[in-house]
Amino acid sequence: LTDSSPEAFRAFREQMNQRILSTDNLVLKRFYNLDSRAYEAGALSEKTKELLGLMGSLVLRCDDCISYHVEQCSKLGTTEAEFFELLSLAHVVGGSIVIPHARRAVAFWDAIHQENITRNDR
Amino acid sequence: LTDSSPEAFRAFREQMNQRILSTDNLVLKRFYNLDSRAYEAGALSEKTKELLGLMGSLVLRCDDCISYHVEQCSKLGTTEAEFFELLSLAHVVGGSIVIPHARRAVAFWDAIHQENITRNDR
Amino acid sequence: LTDSSPEAFRAFREQMNQRILSTDNLVLKRFYNLDSRAYEAGALSEKTKELLGLMGSLVLRCDDCISYHVEQCSKLGTTEAEFFELLSLAHVVGGSIVIPHARRAVAFWDAIHQENITRNDR
Amino acid sequence: LTDSSPEAFRAFREQMNQRILSTDNLVLKRFYNLDSRAYEAGALSEKTKELLGLMGSLVLRCDDCISYHVEQCSKLGTTEAEFFELLSLAHVVGGSIVIPHARRAVAFWDAIHQENITRNDR
Amino acid sequence: LTDSSPEAFRAFREQMNQRILSTDNLVLKRFYNLDSRAYEAGALSEKTKELLGLMGSLVLRCDDCISYHVEQCSKLGTTEAEFFELLSLAHVVGGSIVIPHARRAVAFWDAIHQENITRNDR
Amino acid sequence: LTDSSPEAFRAFREQMNQRILSTDNLVLKRFYNLDSRAYEAGALSEKTKELLGLMGSLVLRCDDCISYHVEQCSKLGTTEAEFFELLSLAHVVGGSIVIPHARRAVAFWDAIHQENITRNDR
Repeated sequence: LTDSSPEAFRAFREQMNQRILSTDNLVLKRFYNLDSRAYEAGALSEKTKELLGLMGSLVLRCDDCISYHVEQCSKLGTTEAEFFELLSLAHVVGGSIVIPHARRAVAFWDAIHQENITRNDR
Repeated sequence: LTDSSPEAFRAFREQMNQRILSTDNLVLKRFYNLDSRAYEAGALSEKTKELLGLMGSLVLRCDDCISYHVEQCSKLGTTEAEFFELLSLAHVVGGSIVIPHARRAVAFWDAIHQENITRNDR
Repeated sequence: LTDSSPEAFRAFREQMNQRILSTDNLVLKRFYNLDSRAYEAGALSEKTKELLGLMGSLVLRCDDCISYHVEQCSKLGTTEAEFFELLSLAHVVGGSIVIPHARRAVAFWDAIHQENITRNDR
Repeated sequence: LTDSSPEAFRAFREQMNQRILSTDNLVLKRFYNLDSRAYEAGALSEKTKELLGLMGSLVLRCDDCISYHVEQCSKLGTTEAEFFELLSLAHVVGGSIVIPHARRAVAFWDAIHQENITRNDR
Repeated sequence: LTDSSPEAFRAFREQMNQRILSTDNLVLKRFYNLDSRAYEAGALSEKTKELLGLMGSLVLRCDDCISYHVEQCSKLGTTEAEFFELLSLAHVVGGSIVIPHARRAVAFWDAIHQENITRNDR
Repeated sequence: LTDSSPEAFRAFREQMNQRILSTDNLVLKRFYNLDSRAYEAGALSEKTKELLGLMGSLVLRCDDCISYHVEQCSKLGTTEAEFFELLSLAHVVGGSIVIPHARRAVAFWDAIHQENITRNDR
């Protein structure tokens, strides 16, 4: 459960989400649904919302939430300069306790960009 | 230290509790003692107290505390429907940052129920 | 906004909830709706769910959430012994930083019971 | 210290910042300086950074930080629809414990817009 | 309940502690007792322990805990330079969300020193 | 990334710090710099500051921060009795959710002392 590669992260996430949504708990189903809808484009763009999601996850220090939003931000065209500026803001707001999570966030950012390079090389 | 199976969790917990209580720090000893007494049946039943302990652990996002209370709740007869209702409440109170901890909580719940099946099959 | 009497708390809460729900933000409306449904009786009773809501609010140290759940718990028949047992558990789980919130929780509990006495005296 | 009007908030903030920066503590001076620089336009716009600052403040439930960023967001042209979308995202990420802070955030948003109307009416 | 002067803080604290300890909840009584014993001189001096208590309270952003430990630190001879160094460390560890609490901590520090001056002038 | 031995911790920390500081983000560079300066001896000694850093890390439950400060405290001559007294204070302030982090803190403390014994035995 603790392997931190992108593949392991996605596989465990997918497996447990299915397990949780296979129960008939209506509040959980609706919460998951709301969690998706909240990031859809509206007055704020999808990219801005993912940046906000990443900011919230960083200052609350939730590694899996950070990994998820790092990948979404990257898919929506966030540049490395934008990513590191957001990280710097999270350090100022949340303090040095954000540092270990930022280390893992950067490692995850690098891992998914390495995946893309490997994929394009094929 | 990071193996998340129930056996590994219990073994490390037991080993370190013994190490900590082997020192002669009176405040730590009393804190551990109080941590046990607080869950004894009183005006509230033992089961209600374990549900409260699980709720507190989920919204504070403490994985090891969650694992411990998941096992206690299960031993005291908490049904899967009750467990998922408590989880749903923790999501509403604590937000989507609870989700990764809920995934691990459900994986732990499933692991200890699998242990029981394996045990009964013998 | 900071007057902590039950009347002032309820009035500001009611006024701002109406203001927030008067906007056409669908995610907010659904979140508020989910926040109500999550506490409805199911596998767990309404009272157990309010106790869980109070526990979550205490360890997360959210005074207004505490006040709300203190009132709900009281309405659903929570005794003073049960209330103080839940408080004691919140201290053990969340530590001495819970104490100032517990002081205000007890003051609020006493204030709503005083309201009931005054009402019955008329 | 607890009067929550925009004027009282700004006055106490200004007075105490001066008091704190009047000491010769270099780390504090640099931290305050960094806290200003982090919000300057770079790869991300000033407005996006203030939205991120507001998101961080909401999920960490820091009322004074929220008030500050609400005012900055408003000054930088954030619309009410954008503001409420950000609020809705903060509820989903941070849970119902964000609600009381959102109530005060909306009251502060309304108060500074009322100030602007009053000012323009003169 | 929200008046933030040292007198009001001490009076409410005293009144509610008596109310809470007047119940016969043994876990609460023992928790309060442990909370006193933990700060007694041992391998670490009383002053170091109060500095640690203030640090914990600042990064956990508990205003009443901060006020209490500010007064204890002051009584045990903490100088203004030491106090501001501890504050600066709390900003670095806990981030800019500590700032509003630091403002109130400094206001409280100044208020109790003003009390001492007034007392000595009599 | 999750191997919790002192060597693995130091290697990943060093590698990612270099990666982060290799970008030209000025705010991050200054934050890291401030994070070092804050712990330099001043009105408070270096050792007292590391104890404060460990206290902040424990109550905020940041395992990597805890490991770092445990090692610094040990290097600066913190005795086992002082270490356990600080741990006991962190339990009282932060509650039982500190326990799992304290277990890992003690395991790390023991691991670095074992390293020293092994080194001296050569």
